Amino acid sequence: MAVNADDFFKAAKLDQPRDTMKSKVGSNVTLINVMQLPGLNTLGISMARIDYAPLGQNPPHTHPRATEILTVLEGTLYVGFVTSNTDNGNKLFTKVLNKGDVFVFPQGLIHFQFNPVHDKPAVAIAALSSQNPGAITIANAVFGSKPPISDDVLAKAFQVQKGTIDWLQAQFWENNHN
Amino acid sequence: MAVNADDFFKAAKLDQPRDTMKSKVGSNVTLINVMQLPGLNTLGISMARIDYAPLGQNPPHTHPRATEILTVLEGTLYVGFVTSNTDNGNKLFTKVLNKGDVFVFPQGLIHFQFNPVHDKPAVAIAALSSQNPGAITIANAVFGSKPPISDDVLAKAFQVQKGTIDWLQAQFWENNHN
Amino acid sequence: MAVNADDFFKAAKLDQPRDTMKSKVGSNVTLINVMQLPGLNTLGISMARIDYAPLGQNPPHTHPRATEILTVLEGTLYVGFVTSNTDNGNKLFTKVLNKGDVFVFPQGLIHFQFNPVHDKPAVAIAALSSQNPGAITIANAVFGSKPPISDDVLAKAFQVQKGTIDWLQAQFWENNHN
Amino acid sequence: MAVNADDFFKAAKLDQPRDTMKSKVGSNVTLINVMQLPGLNTLGISMARIDYAPLGQNPPHTHPRATEILTVLEGTLYVGFVTSNTDNGNKLFTKVLNKGDVFVFPQGLIHFQFNPVHDKPAVAIAALSSQNPGAITIANAVFGSKPPISDDVLAKAFQVQKGTIDWLQAQFWENNHN
Amino acid sequence: MAVNADDFFKAAKLDQPRDTMKSKVGSNVTLINVMQLPGLNTLGISMARIDYAPLGQNPPHTHPRATEILTVLEGTLYVGFVTSNTDNGNKLFTKVLNKGDVFVFPQGLIHFQFNPVHDKPAVAIAALSSQNPGAITIANAVFGSKPPISDDVLAKAFQVQKGTIDWLQAQFWENNHN
Amino acid sequence: MAVNADDFFKAAKLDQPRDTMKSKVGSNVTLINVMQLPGLNTLGISMARIDYAPLGQNPPHTHPRATEILTVLEGTLYVGFVTSNTDNGNKLFTKVLNKGDVFVFPQGLIHFQFNPVHDKPAVAIAALSSQNPGAITIANAVFGSKPPISDDVLAKAFQVQKGTIDWLQAQFWENNHN
Repeated sequence: MAVNADDFFKAAKLDQPRDTMKSKVGSNVTLINVMQLPGLNTLGISMARIDYAPLGQNPPHTHPRATEILTVLEGTLYVGFVTSNTDNGNKLFTKVLNKGDVFVFPQGLIHFQFNPVHDKPAVAIAALSSQNPGAITIANAVFGSKPPISDDVLAKAFQVQKGTIDWLQAQFWENNHN
Repeated sequence: MAVNADDFFKAAKLDQPRDTMKSKVGSNVTLINVMQLPGLNTLGISMARIDYAPLGQNPPHTHPRATEILTVLEGTLYVGFVTSNTDNGNKLFTKVLNKGDVFVFPQGLIHFQFNPVHDKPAVAIAALSSQNPGAITIANAVFGSKPPISDDVLAKAFQVQKGTIDWLQAQFWENNHN
Repeated sequence: MAVNADDFFKAAKLDQPRDTMKSKVGSNVTLINVMQLPGLNTLGISMARIDYAPLGQNPPHTHPRATEILTVLEGTLYVGFVTSNTDNGNKLFTKVLNKGDVFVFPQGLIHFQFNPVHDKPAVAIAALSSQNPGAITIANAVFGSKPPISDDVLAKAFQVQKGTIDWLQAQFWENNHN
Repeated sequence: MAVNADDFFKAAKLDQPRDTMKSKVGSNVTLINVMQLPGLNTLGISMARIDYAPLGQNPPHTHPRATEILTVLEGTLYVGFVTSNTDNGNKLFTKVLNKGDVFVFPQGLIHFQFNPVHDKPAVAIAALSSQNPGAITIANAVFGSKPPISDDVLAKAFQVQKGTIDWLQAQFWENNHN
Repeated sequence: MAVNADDFFKAAKLDQPRDTMKSKVGSNVTLINVMQLPGLNTLGISMARIDYAPLGQNPPHTHPRATEILTVLEGTLYVGFVTSNTDNGNKLFTKVLNKGDVFVFPQGLIHFQFNPVHDKPAVAIAALSSQNPGAITIANAVFGSKPPISDDVLAKAFQVQKGTIDWLQAQFWENNHN
Repeated sequence: MAVNADDFFKAAKLDQPRDTMKSKVGSNVTLINVMQLPGLNTLGISMARIDYAPLGQNPPHTHPRATEILTVLEGTLYVGFVTSNTDNGNKLFTKVLNKGDVFVFPQGLIHFQFNPVHDKPAVAIAALSSQNPGAITIANAVFGSKPPISDDVLAKAFQVQKGTIDWLQAQFWENNHN
């Protein structure tokens, strides 16, 4: 079948608020990547709307194959990323973004967006430099993987007792699956 | 001077309507590329807000180094791009976009966005797969270059008399410089 | 079937003059890309012979995925390209090329080659930095697309009356299809 | 000064055991990247020796710009990585590696290596697909950044009380700075 | 100083025969790369004219950073390349090229062009997929490097006596430096 | 079938000495590329163990699609590469590597490793910046291709009599096929 205009179009409803209630962290990411929009194939870009409940967040995560650029449509966001390991690394860079501000999260770095306002939602539009950027939510990958990462590994990594890790994993599991 | 959070931030006011009155075509593009946001360096992405007056347009143009993905924030847009030359080429793909719809303009193809509504402005957010995508507005490049392209060249290219080209160039010049 | 020497070979007859009479613009491009020469797959290059009738031209066009380097085999060419939009953009860079001269047309920029001599043909060999560079002839894409671009769009883009656009499109159509 | 053979050489002593005692996690990474070996510039590769104390580990981390391939020189390693978020994502893929085995950690994914043996060290040689792959140790970035990430953010991300986060950050800080 | 049309132009005289008499192998390569034509910077392409004396050749060589596409302007060329090592590798692919034929030499493979005609020169135009493709002439690199490669290495590599290597190196040196 | 941990794992036995007796040059390369390890697909890296008999060598060769980084595990290696053709090119850069040293061979350049010790084997681990780097052993490609390269070509290339080439080819063939 020949390619046509519909291959480059998605009635994505990015103007409409998403439900942030089902999310434990108070956010909802609507990503339009090559799976939703086949015309993106080989073209190295994708787009997302992100909704944040009051005090909600897009929790610390990375995109293994993309840089992200973001602008705030509604509300306020406290955003940040952590630089990589070096002699003077693991620096946290943060900024409070108001409506219309733009921020960049470089490829592969751990970053977050947090709505610090207790009574208003926030909305952002983001774009990513890959047709399929991927996302790794740190808490989910570290404490919520299937099967779980061994508590031998995580106890030493986070420098706590294995019991603490077991409890963190159990908490995380319970919060996400009940 | 060390890199800091400000290198990744721009108070771009992308939430605020731009003046579309000064533009002959009734649009205004606010591009945030690596010149405005140094943290974009090497990262292959940029972002823009585009304002369209009623019946305004972002006229036929190309980005020599980027694909564009766009979503409509306000109003309605009639958008399109033309495929490249082949046996069955130069096809026009168009779509009417309403608020929240997403569309892709593949790298290097001629495309446009037109606000078909006579009494309401439109607004879009676009992202481009380059830190410095470039833009070539066809009319400006073809009829408004400095110095002008020879009418010998353009007359045959557009298959009209040289006088027609001279008149088109003069019209374009007058409209853009008075 | 195993790959063999024929996959890297094309009896392309690039030494032989092409007919420039059927072309409305007085030129003929013989492109050897990955469709003609399967061995080019993944290798990022292609080659073309271009014949120009006296006063013929390769009209303003872009290659969405390639830079072009060209040398003149026979005759004289007046060549040029237009820089992209910036504060001081849309500059026309031109040069008269004689036999043996080399010129570069950067990726995605609008460029042309014109044979300014009224009684001699010209010939060039060009190479392009893609196995499938694509080509967008501006006049064909803007005034000859199928279906045509709306005259609402083009009238404002070129800053003329809609009637002028309709006439330009009709002229172009008639010249190319009769 | 002209380039010479020394620009492509490093007396890196990758054959010699590194001290794993100073490390809280019982490992030591000796990375030879473009800072140590200028001849790597633009060439897209680097190499590392990793020493693991008995029960030591290279804790969960990512490389924002590189894939890693690793072979075990001495001892045994329990290794793993977590796939990215999807409907069926956050899967943990693990393997026990013996001497001579090879494993791949795809670009940007969270991975670890753990020496499960209580009385023998382990050693691996790894290579990375970047002249400067970067490394982000999850615990250090999340609980040990300078300044710390807000406990408002981390409490909700990890779905525990803020006091738990404060305690985890304090523990991590104390263990790493005393 | 601003960029101008001269940065994209080279009066390269690629139409004019080069002297093939000074060359021991009977050929002369005139390469137009980024050193001759600064406008090629970052654009991934270059062009060359190659002259072949009767029975002359462009001897076995590789381009470490480029694929080559070639067309014959005058005469006849016997061309070939050798595939890389595999179970069924080191295959020689050859073809006799007449005027106007096109052939591709994939990146990094050893290839040659030979003029098999005893009384007529040949000429080709080639293009390469890099602004600076590099060239490694096998005989020069293996038997003519400065300083010479150890005859211990070469004797076993070519499976002859060291005296044979010494003689081959001396022959090569004498022929190229007297 | 779903991807699983085995796709990223190879029981490659890179710790075990390989037989260097069957090789005419006294070496054995065990390459783990995407054919052995499907998880390497699109990831741009591969790894090899190289065994060298006393006085054995990995003879002059190139990788058409990869840079190589190497460290010595056992013994001593005399290594080198030859720079490409330029006014002051074809320089031989060499180094004696001891256990633990690291060396880089840039993409596409002719290089070798030689064990200069008469009574001890050597072992190296190398990594290459491609999932399928390819290898072209110069002697095999030049004197051992199937079919052989014409002695007309090789005689002039190496600047010896055709009889010498025929003898070199016969020697090489006999040594490698008997």
